[in-house]
Amino acid sequence: MSTRPCFEWIKPRHDRMPEECGVVGMYDAGGAPVSEALYYGLYALQHRGQESAGIALSDGRGIRYHKAMGLVTECFSEGATLKNLGNGSIGIGHVRYSTAGSSQVVNAQPLVVRYKNGTMALAHNGNLINAQHIRGILERRGVISQTALDTEVIANLIARFSGDDIVGAIRRTMEYIRGAYSLVIMTETQLIGVRDPGGVRPLALGRLGDAYMIASESCAFDAVGADFIRDLRPGEIVVVDRSGLRSIQTETPPQSHLCIFEFVYFARTDSVIDGVSVYQARENAGRLLARSAGVEADMVSGVPDSAITAAIGYSKESGIPYGEGLAKNRYVGRTFIQPQQSRRETGVRIKLNALRKNVQGKRVVLVDDSIVRGTTSRKIVEMLRCAGAREVHMLISSPPVVYPCFFGIDTPDREQLIGARNSVEQIRAKIGADTLCYLPIEDLLKTVDGAVCGFCQGCFNSEYPLDPDAFREFCPPLE
Amino acid sequence: MSTRPCFEWIKPRHDRMPEECGVVGMYDAGGAPVSEALYYGLYALQHRGQESAGIALSDGRGIRYHKAMGLVTECFSEGATLKNLGNGSIGIGHVRYSTAGSSQVVNAQPLVVRYKNGTMALAHNGNLINAQHIRGILERRGVISQTALDTEVIANLIARFSGDDIVGAIRRTMEYIRGAYSLVIMTETQLIGVRDPGGVRPLALGRLGDAYMIASESCAFDAVGADFIRDLRPGEIVVVDRSGLRSIQTETPPQSHLCIFEFVYFARTDSVIDGVSVYQARENAGRLLARSAGVEADMVSGVPDSAITAAIGYSKESGIPYGEGLAKNRYVGRTFIQPQQSRRETGVRIKLNALRKNVQGKRVVLVDDSIVRGTTSRKIVEMLRCAGAREVHMLISSPPVVYPCFFGIDTPDREQLIGARNSVEQIRAKIGADTLCYLPIEDLLKTVDGAVCGFCQGCFNSEYPLDPDAFREFCPPLE
Amino acid sequence: MSTRPCFEWIKPRHDRMPEECGVVGMYDAGGAPVSEALYYGLYALQHRGQESAGIALSDGRGIRYHKAMGLVTECFSEGATLKNLGNGSIGIGHVRYSTAGSSQVVNAQPLVVRYKNGTMALAHNGNLINAQHIRGILERRGVISQTALDTEVIANLIARFSGDDIVGAIRRTMEYIRGAYSLVIMTETQLIGVRDPGGVRPLALGRLGDAYMIASESCAFDAVGADFIRDLRPGEIVVVDRSGLRSIQTETPPQSHLCIFEFVYFARTDSVIDGVSVYQARENAGRLLARSAGVEADMVSGVPDSAITAAIGYSKESGIPYGEGLAKNRYVGRTFIQPQQSRRETGVRIKLNALRKNVQGKRVVLVDDSIVRGTTSRKIVEMLRCAGAREVHMLISSPPVVYPCFFGIDTPDREQLIGARNSVEQIRAKIGADTLCYLPIEDLLKTVDGAVCGFCQGCFNSEYPLDPDAFREFCPPLE
Amino acid sequence: MSTRPCFEWIKPRHDRMPEECGVVGMYDAGGAPVSEALYYGLYALQHRGQESAGIALSDGRGIRYHKAMGLVTECFSEGATLKNLGNGSIGIGHVRYSTAGSSQVVNAQPLVVRYKNGTMALAHNGNLINAQHIRGILERRGVISQTALDTEVIANLIARFSGDDIVGAIRRTMEYIRGAYSLVIMTETQLIGVRDPGGVRPLALGRLGDAYMIASESCAFDAVGADFIRDLRPGEIVVVDRSGLRSIQTETPPQSHLCIFEFVYFARTDSVIDGVSVYQARENAGRLLARSAGVEADMVSGVPDSAITAAIGYSKESGIPYGEGLAKNRYVGRTFIQPQQSRRETGVRIKLNALRKNVQGKRVVLVDDSIVRGTTSRKIVEMLRCAGAREVHMLISSPPVVYPCFFGIDTPDREQLIGARNSVEQIRAKIGADTLCYLPIEDLLKTVDGAVCGFCQGCFNSEYPLDPDAFREFCPPLE
Repeated sequence: MSTRPCFEWIKPRHDRMPEECGVVGMYDAGGAPVSEALYYGLYALQHRGQESAGIALSDGRGIRYHKAMGLVTECFSEGATLKNLGNGSIGIGHVRYSTAGSSQVVNAQPLVVRYKNGTMALAHNGNLINAQHIRGILERRGVISQTALDTEVIANLIARFSGDDIVGAIRRTMEYIRGAYSLVIMTETQLIGVRDPGGVRPLALGRLGDAYMIASESCAFDAVGADFIRDLRPGEIVVVDRSGLRSIQTETPPQSHLCIFEFVYFARTDSVIDGVSVYQARENAGRLLARSAGVEADMVSGVPDSAITAAIGYSKESGIPYGEGLAKNRYVGRTFIQPQQSRRETGVRIKLNALRKNVQGKRVVLVDDSIVRGTTSRKIVEMLRCAGAREVHMLISSPPVVYPCFFGIDTPDREQLIGARNSVEQIRAKIGADTLCYLPIEDLLKTVDGAVCGFCQGCFNSEYPLDPDAFREFCPPLE
Repeated sequence: MSTRPCFEWIKPRHDRMPEECGVVGMYDAGGAPVSEALYYGLYALQHRGQESAGIALSDGRGIRYHKAMGLVTECFSEGATLKNLGNGSIGIGHVRYSTAGSSQVVNAQPLVVRYKNGTMALAHNGNLINAQHIRGILERRGVISQTALDTEVIANLIARFSGDDIVGAIRRTMEYIRGAYSLVIMTETQLIGVRDPGGVRPLALGRLGDAYMIASESCAFDAVGADFIRDLRPGEIVVVDRSGLRSIQTETPPQSHLCIFEFVYFARTDSVIDGVSVYQARENAGRLLARSAGVEADMVSGVPDSAITAAIGYSKESGIPYGEGLAKNRYVGRTFIQPQQSRRETGVRIKLNALRKNVQGKRVVLVDDSIVRGTTSRKIVEMLRCAGAREVHMLISSPPVVYPCFFGIDTPDREQLIGARNSVEQIRAKIGADTLCYLPIEDLLKTVDGAVCGFCQGCFNSEYPLDPDAFREFCPPLE
Repeated sequence: MSTRPCFEWIKPRHDRMPEECGVVGMYDAGGAPVSEALYYGLYALQHRGQESAGIALSDGRGIRYHKAMGLVTECFSEGATLKNLGNGSIGIGHVRYSTAGSSQVVNAQPLVVRYKNGTMALAHNGNLINAQHIRGILERRGVISQTALDTEVIANLIARFSGDDIVGAIRRTMEYIRGAYSLVIMTETQLIGVRDPGGVRPLALGRLGDAYMIASESCAFDAVGADFIRDLRPGEIVVVDRSGLRSIQTETPPQSHLCIFEFVYFARTDSVIDGVSVYQARENAGRLLARSAGVEADMVSGVPDSAITAAIGYSKESGIPYGEGLAKNRYVGRTFIQPQQSRRETGVRIKLNALRKNVQGKRVVLVDDSIVRGTTSRKIVEMLRCAGAREVHMLISSPPVVYPCFFGIDTPDREQLIGARNSVEQIRAKIGADTLCYLPIEDLLKTVDGAVCGFCQGCFNSEYPLDPDAFREFCPPLE
Repeated sequence: MSTRPCFEWIKPRHDRMPEECGVVGMYDAGGAPVSEALYYGLYALQHRGQESAGIALSDGRGIRYHKAMGLVTECFSEGATLKNLGNGSIGIGHVRYSTAGSSQVVNAQPLVVRYKNGTMALAHNGNLINAQHIRGILERRGVISQTALDTEVIANLIARFSGDDIVGAIRRTMEYIRGAYSLVIMTETQLIGVRDPGGVRPLALGRLGDAYMIASESCAFDAVGADFIRDLRPGEIVVVDRSGLRSIQTETPPQSHLCIFEFVYFARTDSVIDGVSVYQARENAGRLLARSAGVEADMVSGVPDSAITAAIGYSKESGIPYGEGLAKNRYVGRTFIQPQQSRRETGVRIKLNALRKNVQGKRVVLVDDSIVRGTTSRKIVEMLRCAGAREVHMLISSPPVVYPCFFGIDTPDREQLIGARNSVEQIRAKIGADTLCYLPIEDLLKTVDGAVCGFCQGCFNSEYPLDPDAFREFCPPLE
């Protein structure tokens, strides 16, 4: 179960591989093995991707890796697998988001390649706008591709630009690639972290004894008892090697653009990103929603798990008591058999179920973090009504998603985005709620007050950090 | 991964196999296949046991089954496995609790045996006090055992007592066995539910179109859209066959003894057992705890997931705002690699992590459902303090567990039960909390007000429904 | 791959489980571990059964076992599996023949059961005539069955008859069971070998240093460097324990009935059974066939692998040069995908292929060991003709199989036995050969000249060691 | 078991990946699916490589593939895997030889890559002398490597040279690469076969209805009922597409150099390569050995399986009767557990065992195809002596292997080649034989009389088709 053969449909051209992922890296100056810390770190980042996991390790002379489909615990289900990677004191790891139909071990990361100066391993969170374009240019110059990963384009550029110094090659690569990227790169002797100039995806620096650690979220540090030092700055390259840690700041635009959805639903509540507690941002969102929505109700409930915190905030602000309205089955796995011969639509009740005794006869405020296609919301509202809820008021702790994401979140096409083609009132009618309120974007930005960064709000208002159309075919001349 | 070979250490004698499990059964009078509903039903009962799962199906002529180690979704990870069981319209299923070291597919259920009148399959939740004794008597008469299951003893007795009618044999079997048992039994043509005279374990009856359904908890009915009809009565046998449903009431003591821990932490919040909503009971527990404890604090938090509801009740009653103090990693699997080379005790932070921003500088009331050994509680308290909590008040929504359970819950030996050898003050000191309060047993009983049953409180006060010592060697003469 | 979940279709009654299997046992008086020798011993007996394999080990206090579907190397593919069985110095093992449709780990052996005096493990080669009958009687007395194995009936009888002494119980059991059985039985402290009074299946005794070994064939001794001591006598029980080895001779009929098919094709050529070399018997068969058939030809060839030796004998006797006419693909596995969309009947060419250059223009004598259904023979003849053979003379090194086997070989029903419903001339026409000759039974008996036993020839002439009809319902009174 | 995660130790540089493999390709002009024929074709070539297997399929628009560790039947053990590849009517397949320590799915073939004109898949049998050198040059120009395969170098060159026409790119690639290569290449719309100018590895063309087939050996055609058309000529490129089949002949040296070891032991006896029957060549070798050796003996035997045919030839020529002296265990798998705690050296007896009854007291001529390290030969001689052979005369059907192979066979280093450092008399003494004779090289060449090609005899006399030292760093200028 922990592995699958590599099985792939390589389309002739132009397949896109959008993804939200988690990355981690570690360098122990004292020479202690890092594989176990990487395992726990990845495990703490599991919410960022459940499709595949991988760890690459260097013992200073060569790089060994293991990657496979499935959860971290499945990929490394046999202790032997982790042990076989050896005692390397430099390593990186990656978890990948599951997008339908792309379950291919060939696309798992880290990507390990040999290049002129030895071997490098790369783990990437984000999405490049111009990866396909650069890939095409490279291919026209005779380069072959073996994966559908943006990461392979990055590896090709670094290899092509490499002189004596990989950092110089990374700097040049950053002049070519446009989009979101938080990268952890390893050579036989170095650990390198890179955050794109927009700072779209998070990346943080930590310390555990003699070791430096780099990870997508601070919760990975907590998992192994490491201390959070600071977030990487947009456009920053951090290099850890025998001489210790050094930072290179590349040119960046005046304003950064952290993806605000990291706070809405993607990151873990116990993480702190660019100065803002995810938990706090979600509670704030609930409070602000309460102020703007002002619905009368008997109880406030949240869709588990990501909207619970906002629901609690709502309750605190509104004074309406918080209560659980939905029970969630915790045992959701990759291998769930979809209903086929079912007598009636069991729908969403397999994963969620209404708490009849708790909602019966009540006017329920139900907080959710977002509505994408609207189908799940419709089923949840119906389920609460069947359980006897007198009124169901759906309050969303973010604005309507109207535009696609080009920076690493796998949003559906615009036709499937219910927010793109319907007014709020139309959506309310479709999902069958008594009320539907979204959090205005101004309020959403208030939830992250105190942040040391700016925010990307592209999916709400198409104000992207980079114009996708302008940069989709961006590529400075390659000699 | 979804299956393991049968691998077993059969000790010469007297090994005990305590367990909490989930059972489900279905009979479709219209002849429709039941395998899918059983799958979803088992999946809804997954919280009752994660070690192994199995389904047995009858098409009216023969019984086919599949059982394996792992979660329901792992055991039936390939749709083909479920399909291979065929279109039988009678079936039963079982999930089993994982107790360390007993991971043996030979002990998975349903147990399928051939006997004089054909084939029967049995799924059992509970624990018999006198199973070992009866097994010994049977062995002395030449019977062989192939598993360590109480269920095998039950199957032997039913087979031995069988005349023309299996119901008569079950009635006679009930005169011999003592302890807790909720049984779902299937022959080629019948589905039978049995609840022990003490009513210690739950068992409920539901209906979906032409089909009757029997399950440990009502949430299994919700999962497939079935309607809850009623709980089986203590001592009741329910038979479903071509002639429909009939009930046989065996003799029962005046008072029943439902395990109150089903409400404290075992059952799912959306289930209703013997007239009481699990959710309601837990919220009540929190409220009563607030009244009896009366701790001053800035926030109330619960240990996820089972104590969240009580914490919410506490908050409502006390007026102290509810907030999340701990984040839980949802991706806990069977194959988690235990820390070995770790630099420091990562402890419980891998599965739980404090929400620093939320607890910093605060006086925190932390609600948990019970304390068994005390080690986890100590780590959680320490974690909250490290995260900056000014005070940590531990409030337990049940009384101290002082005595072992003989009726299906796998409690440790008394030496390991922290409540058995320490005063509340000693426990408080050991776990390092500022306050430790337990819910008094009188209050716990109030949480289930309105129940149509009595309750077993043996683990709190040794008032068991049956004296284990008196009945451990109970066995009426076998002809 | 090495394991499958237990998946079974238990028919209401009377399913038969015919099988040819291999058994091995070992007792090391010096206390040395025996698991590795059992593994190699089983591996040497792999030709006797490829469906499942298992090993049970006793360390003097308890019995541990592992069994799974597949080849020995698959079942124990991870060294850890063998290691986990521990350092027991008593052990038994079993390989089971693959009969279509019965791939069920629940029917794998050894069968390990608890009974009044502790635990016993049984490994069985052979088939009982009256197992179903006794099973029925036991079931009427309340016994349950969990497998379809004759071995379970034997275990029940031994358990039922056990007083202080298992040997007495085995003796009594032998008074009840009728048919073929070579048994290796283990308790926590004893290794026991049993051969049925007819001596139908082989069983031999060997020695390796301080250890005694029991095995179906002597090649298992060679594999571990053990010395062959002697065959067990028909009706003999051999017990190895702390006091060393002792033999109990039970009553036997004047003549024994070793299955002559062991020499025709079942046993390995390097084994010696009851005084006769399998290799020698096969070469003799070829020589006698040459004398009786007297076909003129240019080359003699054998169907690989089992008929090669007879073909060589034929060549030696006739002076016609031996040559290979067919190449065999050695990589036949359990998981071979059957042709579905094939353009033409690829037939048997996937496993066998004619050596065109060698047979072209030649008159070919093709020796095979037996014809069962005739379909394979027809394809082979056709293949040789397509490859240019001028004449194809099919010579069979045994008489026509006309009757079913009741003693452990899985022969098809009489309707499918081509020999049962056709004259030799009709068969010749059906398979398309120029000549078809069988070895007369008198000659077959000459091939095993020097044997210390008699032979069962039931499948040729229905002269069974026991009349199946007379004993199918045999069962002395059970108290 | 059929798959393993990709797990790899990428050494910093210069690891060599010598291999003998099997390739197959098919193009069905009628649009019929080819996956099943490829499966059976690969299965027929299984003897050429047991480490991994893979199939890539094109439906005219895109390429799908599956590859995994293990035998063909293991990699495609689930029919679904083959079905998931779809109904493509163009496809190629590959089986790979197992060299110790390189069990890495990343090195399995076919290699599927995207390049400027779409996607191509490559399957390669052979070894390039200058692959490492070209890889280095490519890397210096910025190319990255993801595997250790020569095939990746070939793919890079083809991609780099590709204009409109892949055939032109292949022709240019052939000007760069030096060594042995039989290639099957597929684009979305073409099937291409390439044989190196030396013709070192075999490659043949066949036909089945509307389909062309290309395969390493003709036995792959027989397996699916296809007709052998002809061998590819050294330096020939064959292209099959919508317009049918066309052949391009590139420049070739006057003499070709087919690896003569294909006849000695590598190919299957039923194959015909470059006009010579493998079977015939082996029988000839035995006959010539008999003429040159002239040993007096009582029986002739061969080491199974590859030396049996030569032994039969020896017998025919010498008149000494052929007999089996050794029995072979047919169930050798990848997962065999090596002896650890063994009491004595069980040695080679697990896979081979002497037929005592057949060799006892006899003077035995034992024919083997080659001696590499000598350890196995020593054990076999000893085994025959233990079994009572009076004399053991070892006759080898090829000359001593004295030099390493650079063209695709994984020979050990010269220090381990017993023939490289010892006289024939010294070797005889080391292996303990009474006689040791090798077949002189002149005689070996006679065994393949009638061949339409020349032969590489480099391992015997260092007369390689290309001087490895001269070409190891060969690379014409890359623009």
